[in-house]
Amino acid sequence: MTFSLERVETPALVIDKAKTLRNIQRFQDFCDQRGLASRPHIKTHKSAVLAHAQLAAGAGGITCQKIGEAEVMAEAGIRDILITFNILGQEKLQRLRALAARLDRLAVVADNEDVIEGLAQAFAFADKPLSVLVECDTGAKRSGVQTPAEAVELAQAINMCKGLEFGGLMTYPSLGGGADVLAFMRATLNMLQSCGIACPVVSSGGTPDMWQAESAGIITEYRAGTYVYNDRSLAERGSCKWEDCSAYVLATVVSRPTRDRAILDAGSKALTSDLLGLEGYGAILGHPGARMVGLSEEHGIVELEPGKTLCVGQRVKIIPNHVCVVSNLFDQAWLLDEHGELSTLPIDARGCVT
Amino acid sequence: MTFSLERVETPALVIDKAKTLRNIQRFQDFCDQRGLASRPHIKTHKSAVLAHAQLAAGAGGITCQKIGEAEVMAEAGIRDILITFNILGQEKLQRLRALAARLDRLAVVADNEDVIEGLAQAFAFADKPLSVLVECDTGAKRSGVQTPAEAVELAQAINMCKGLEFGGLMTYPSLGGGADVLAFMRATLNMLQSCGIACPVVSSGGTPDMWQAESAGIITEYRAGTYVYNDRSLAERGSCKWEDCSAYVLATVVSRPTRDRAILDAGSKALTSDLLGLEGYGAILGHPGARMVGLSEEHGIVELEPGKTLCVGQRVKIIPNHVCVVSNLFDQAWLLDEHGELSTLPIDARGCVT
Repeated sequence: MTFSLERVETPALVIDKAKTLRNIQRFQDFCDQRGLASRPHIKTHKSAVLAHAQLAAGAGGITCQKIGEAEVMAEAGIRDILITFNILGQEKLQRLRALAARLDRLAVVADNEDVIEGLAQAFAFADKPLSVLVECDTGAKRSGVQTPAEAVELAQAINMCKGLEFGGLMTYPSLGGGADVLAFMRATLNMLQSCGIACPVVSSGGTPDMWQAESAGIITEYRAGTYVYNDRSLAERGSCKWEDCSAYVLATVVSRPTRDRAILDAGSKALTSDLLGLEGYGAILGHPGARMVGLSEEHGIVELEPGKTLCVGQRVKIIPNHVCVVSNLFDQAWLLDEHGELSTLPIDARGCVT
Repeated sequence: MTFSLERVETPALVIDKAKTLRNIQRFQDFCDQRGLASRPHIKTHKSAVLAHAQLAAGAGGITCQKIGEAEVMAEAGIRDILITFNILGQEKLQRLRALAARLDRLAVVADNEDVIEGLAQAFAFADKPLSVLVECDTGAKRSGVQTPAEAVELAQAINMCKGLEFGGLMTYPSLGGGADVLAFMRATLNMLQSCGIACPVVSSGGTPDMWQAESAGIITEYRAGTYVYNDRSLAERGSCKWEDCSAYVLATVVSRPTRDRAILDAGSKALTSDLLGLEGYGAILGHPGARMVGLSEEHGIVELEPGKTLCVGQRVKIIPNHVCVVSNLFDQAWLLDEHGELSTLPIDARGCVT
């Protein structure tokens, strides 16, 4: 299908194909140089096509956050998946069993004994053991055990369960928390070794600090998600260049109520309200002085720079603050190739909340 | 289908049927008493079933924000729709023509001449004229003409176009801006009268101030959306009682990393990041001291009150800050009836961004 960008109805999510593939390759090359296995998180693109592109570039498997996402990726033929979320409840455990049977390798995480107990019950009579990594809170203050001793305790508990095997350590670091990750993991590895417990994987992640990722003989695997598209939060932070942002929301100026106010047809239903510590709701490319000062569901409110204008009907490209949540709002994106041709990019795992 | 709430996988959006129908009836009764036509905004529920419930209670028609929403509602048999958004662009205008042909009455808004020109071109040879209301900015600082004189100018421009007819005045008021609405509309009506222009409708809206809505011989129609479910922003503001909040997100405690921290499986993909001026990302029913201090996409981070606890596996009900954006994140909700029975409630117009 050939279809020009001018005819795409707004608001729309547009993905620059060449930039996206370049982002994928650059991160894979970096991991290869550092001796890190890469395991991209699909939460950003939620696209089977792009997950396959990441595997083709050299990733050993993918990361998902929800069983529903993993089910979609399994359906698309992906065979090695890590789900970095505590899984609880009979319904979810049944789905996990069925998912494991379809894959070459499924791994999950746990940071407490209730989760391990549920997994053990579900996999006690499975054909192959489920790999369970212990999630460690190395400073991000989200999920995860608080100390190396707790991590070792859970590793032992996992290995004592029929149907489960300790798959390693996993963490989502705090911003700039690379040294904390290394310290926590080094201490835990030492304790595991003293107990004679093998630790096949030490998995860290996160796009903001990924170019600082060092294996240091400790980290074996890196999970990154946002790097595939990048976004305003990463560009403002210096984690990527603006020209590496490969996803934008195309919007139309629908109203010019005053000299200094323009209204776009992209609000929180297209851009989300995520600020991620920034001012404003997105960066309008080519209009650095125009500030996105407010969003309602369908309206984006722009304060114009004195002397600069935007006309009703004019289209603008907005780099969103946080692209992962944006791709969850569109049923499909438009993939723009280097010849200016558009094709649809289904966002296969959109809305997989469970 | 009978299916108990205990078996519903989390996160889930649950709608209390009786409370929702009570909210619908109460607002309709209020409008009837005040002599206001009610035209509910479907953006909150995005559900054909609930739109029909609003019509059955006495609403004359519905309000949509996007053509896509209106198309879904037309498909469901609804025949009178106002779209309160400037519509621009060939593709959208074609869809609008097709939509008009399916309805008994379609009205749209305009706040500038470019929009009117596009509508006029699209409807010049239509079977029946398109009703166009002029959107007025009465203080909310979003879209809308700034002065009564501009409103009259656009009304004249509309009436001069073959295929269009001036349908009245429309505004989305600022919070507490009822007096500003009346002043703007009174002045505009006087000027319209001087010019001999009939004004069939003066439409105001918004749930936060709806119980203060007065026709005052000026307002003829009221559009409200959020009232159907209500939410934390309305309850905190006193616009509704907590027991009138009929939608909640059901979530599970998946981790208890520290004594004072609990992690829920509902993050910004279930609750959105909308704060609407509040602190925290939602109210956990029955746990008033527990504060939802952070969200990532799939994690809700809760700070517990000293001495109070939440256990791994425990389920909680969260009243979201802003329910309209929440229902846009789920493909379906669960409708809970007074006997505790559940049925699915499709969110038909979810994701209609264009």
